[in-house]
Amino acid sequence: MMLDLKRLENELMAWLGESRVRILDAMNTPLHVDVKSGRNDLVTNVDKANQRFLTNKILAAYPDARIEGEEGTAEKVHDLAGTVFFLDPIDGTMNFVKQHANFAVMIGVYENGAPRFGAILDVMRNEVLTGGPTVAPKRNGRRLPLPKDHELKDGLMGASGPLLIHNKLNVQVINEASSGTRITGSAGIEFKAIIEGQQIGYISYLQPWDVAAGMAIGAHFGLQVTRPDGKAINMLEPGFVVAALPSAYRDIRKLIVVD
Amino acid sequence: MMLDLKRLENELMAWLGESRVRILDAMNTPLHVDVKSGRNDLVTNVDKANQRFLTNKILAAYPDARIEGEEGTAEKVHDLAGTVFFLDPIDGTMNFVKQHANFAVMIGVYENGAPRFGAILDVMRNEVLTGGPTVAPKRNGRRLPLPKDHELKDGLMGASGPLLIHNKLNVQVINEASSGTRITGSAGIEFKAIIEGQQIGYISYLQPWDVAAGMAIGAHFGLQVTRPDGKAINMLEPGFVVAALPSAYRDIRKLIVVD
Repeated sequence: MMLDLKRLENELMAWLGESRVRILDAMNTPLHVDVKSGRNDLVTNVDKANQRFLTNKILAAYPDARIEGEEGTAEKVHDLAGTVFFLDPIDGTMNFVKQHANFAVMIGVYENGAPRFGAILDVMRNEVLTGGPTVAPKRNGRRLPLPKDHELKDGLMGASGPLLIHNKLNVQVINEASSGTRITGSAGIEFKAIIEGQQIGYISYLQPWDVAAGMAIGAHFGLQVTRPDGKAINMLEPGFVVAALPSAYRDIRKLIVVD
Repeated sequence: MMLDLKRLENELMAWLGESRVRILDAMNTPLHVDVKSGRNDLVTNVDKANQRFLTNKILAAYPDARIEGEEGTAEKVHDLAGTVFFLDPIDGTMNFVKQHANFAVMIGVYENGAPRFGAILDVMRNEVLTGGPTVAPKRNGRRLPLPKDHELKDGLMGASGPLLIHNKLNVQVINEASSGTRITGSAGIEFKAIIEGQQIGYISYLQPWDVAAGMAIGAHFGLQVTRPDGKAINMLEPGFVVAALPSAYRDIRKLIVVD
């Protein structure tokens, strides 16, 4: 079955719009914050409620689809056959808790392992980016200009804080070769910056639901999204991810050091 | 002469409002970008035009005041006697050029070396923060809740990219002891995040006009802004700056390494 992408776009816009109102409402009541793998890996009642909400919407519309979500309310996906929705109900939970800003809701839709469509909602800016390999990127339903390709030296690079601090993959040298380093603390906000032409790339350690939407939207304009050694992303496991526009990507690959 | 702070607040709000419209207009025409001290230290025609515009406004209202501004259209200030306006017409010029977002206009007003009032305009979010030692912080004229004090481990830390990459002052260790590192590329946006309670501190190498407004506003709620060794900022020269809420500041001072 091939997805009807126009129908899917309309559904995602509606679900994310409703999701946003629920998150804003929940921000008026006390948060319940739990720690996951470490003291800076957080989950809140809002993450969990939003995962339930979006899971129910997806399964009502696509009963045969499977869902791979950050908060694990659905069954773990062990292969990529058929339609898989990668779902991050709150990406950048630390920002959500500490900043009340700079967090995202992301949905990436794949068929038999291939990206078809992605949506990134920046909740506090009230902006939804959508698109896919065959669908030009839009913000809130309006076409965006495609980001211009730049060499590494001519654009801003995003990174995860821990990778930069520990110079994993030689990220310190890569980022110093750029116009400057920016750290936002949300993969969704970083991919959004690339799609909107504010940033030329991003290097981090990511889960499949962190990368699914951005990789789907970016495929329309040649965004390179690979493992550090240039191999394709395996959407069944976490790992290091290099995302960059083509010229910057070539520069990065010359500087990157794979352990 | 003691400044009338109510009058000053009204003037700054009006000038920054007009300044914002002029900057947004200028963004519709091609930018002229020049390099200053190095390839990532930029100035544009918009920085220069805005410095002229604000300088004229200040001198028309305060003919005896002196102005210390980033783009140096006025005479260099060599002492802090009387009324000094510290002016950054575009703070975060790289972001202005590359992102069209996350840049600020800042004005800090000092009398005989003491902070009296500050204003930080986040141009693209259309938000002006104002305040001073004797004036509670406001956003767009409305009182803000004061930021809560937190230990270092319980808040996000801002840093400059080069300091973090080179571990100047032991910033890598300091930031790893926090909830996470964020890099925005604009001192004004970093101070704004602290004032709005999104971030507990910021460490960077700053000019007087980068620090003047934030230090004035933060004085109302005990924001510590010093050199790394705890000494007062000398508003006549650039240098390293540690800005943090009191508990985080104490934690930072235990970890900081002064070369």
